[in-house]
Amino acid sequence: MEIGILGSGTVGRTLGAKFLELGHRVTIGSRDAAKPEAIEWADAHGADATDFAEAAEAGELLVNATAGAASLDVLLSVGAEALGGKVLIDVANRLDFSAGFPPFVTVSNHRSLGEELQHAFPSLRVVKALNTVNAAVMIAPERIGGGVHDVFVAGDDAEAKRDVVELLAAFGWRRDRIRDLGGIKAARGLETYLPLWLELMGLLGTAEFNIRIVGTDGS
Amino acid sequence: MEIGILGSGTVGRTLGAKFLELGHRVTIGSRDAAKPEAIEWADAHGADATDFAEAAEAGELLVNATAGAASLDVLLSVGAEALGGKVLIDVANRLDFSAGFPPFVTVSNHRSLGEELQHAFPSLRVVKALNTVNAAVMIAPERIGGGVHDVFVAGDDAEAKRDVVELLAAFGWRRDRIRDLGGIKAARGLETYLPLWLELMGLLGTAEFNIRIVGTDGS
Repeated sequence: MEIGILGSGTVGRTLGAKFLELGHRVTIGSRDAAKPEAIEWADAHGADATDFAEAAEAGELLVNATAGAASLDVLLSVGAEALGGKVLIDVANRLDFSAGFPPFVTVSNHRSLGEELQHAFPSLRVVKALNTVNAAVMIAPERIGGGVHDVFVAGDDAEAKRDVVELLAAFGWRRDRIRDLGGIKAARGLETYLPLWLELMGLLGTAEFNIRIVGTDGS
Repeated sequence: MEIGILGSGTVGRTLGAKFLELGHRVTIGSRDAAKPEAIEWADAHGADATDFAEAAEAGELLVNATAGAASLDVLLSVGAEALGGKVLIDVANRLDFSAGFPPFVTVSNHRSLGEELQHAFPSLRVVKALNTVNAAVMIAPERIGGGVHDVFVAGDDAEAKRDVVELLAAFGWRRDRIRDLGGIKAARGLETYLPLWLELMGLLGTAEFNIRIVGTDGS
């Protein structure tokens, strides 16, 4: 499959490398098509590096790995025509570093970034996923907790969610730990979890952690 | 110890029964000192039932188990004199049911209920704890996940947090799973987790669940 990744930071490159390893083709997009790190990474990995619009054009399936604070503007610059009815996996968090670290998370439970992207592009099939773990864990869940911990999908289009579940399973996520929270509205809970995630990162001194849901079945 | 519990709903009564079982004395406060369910519960359990102000007076250690949307007003009605320099365990969440279920969580990561209570009463020693699990799990963590899952404390007063940690351990929480997130500011993460908790409750069909932090040590 042709994967178009918007954003060539750590998350975009980490996901890109995994998609390539799985046999997909990857076009990674940056604000500036000539961004040296993106071109260097693409050359080393056998991917293409270009700007956001061309990466969106190239991909059959898209990943939003831009900084959450910029994501809506990036998609608006790409435009509805290039986005079409494609699946977009939105892994971004809208962090505000203007007051230093830890950042504020500039969403509320009245509106999430995932919903905003979906509302701005009604034909696009947005699936919120993977924003609750760091890049290393996204593509290698077996690194922590014996691989038994949870990841979430939220989106309005059932078929798009099935596609994303297959990709997550290919990344190594256990199918019984890929939790479908329902429509894109559930991105609210996934995004407002970030302040706790940031506090836990401070406590644990690492970003390589996740949560396992436990219940009365002792799981 | 004399425990003053503000709020005689499920959470207040559940915590009250556990404190009594552990040998403490309990005064439970309601808006109306003559609230029939509170008096009935107190009579059946060997506790005292009265209004908020008298419960706050009676307790050496206080629990805020009022509805989060009302908590600040309740404490303002009690007044700084009765609250003094006591420890207050704040287990509340500020939920807004005005648009039905699931409720909105009317906090942001710019200000939490825990911080608001602390700011309103600078001498009070507020410790945010237990707001991330339902009442049944609060007092019996062994009910789920083999007892291996996490609970959090946040507060500015180290001694107050130690008192709360001892109470949590007496409730059955494993000491290595009682996570000190730092000052009361960390109540932000604990409170903005609630939208995800509500979504998970919907998914799982039960409120008896919690999260276990897993990391590179395989825990």
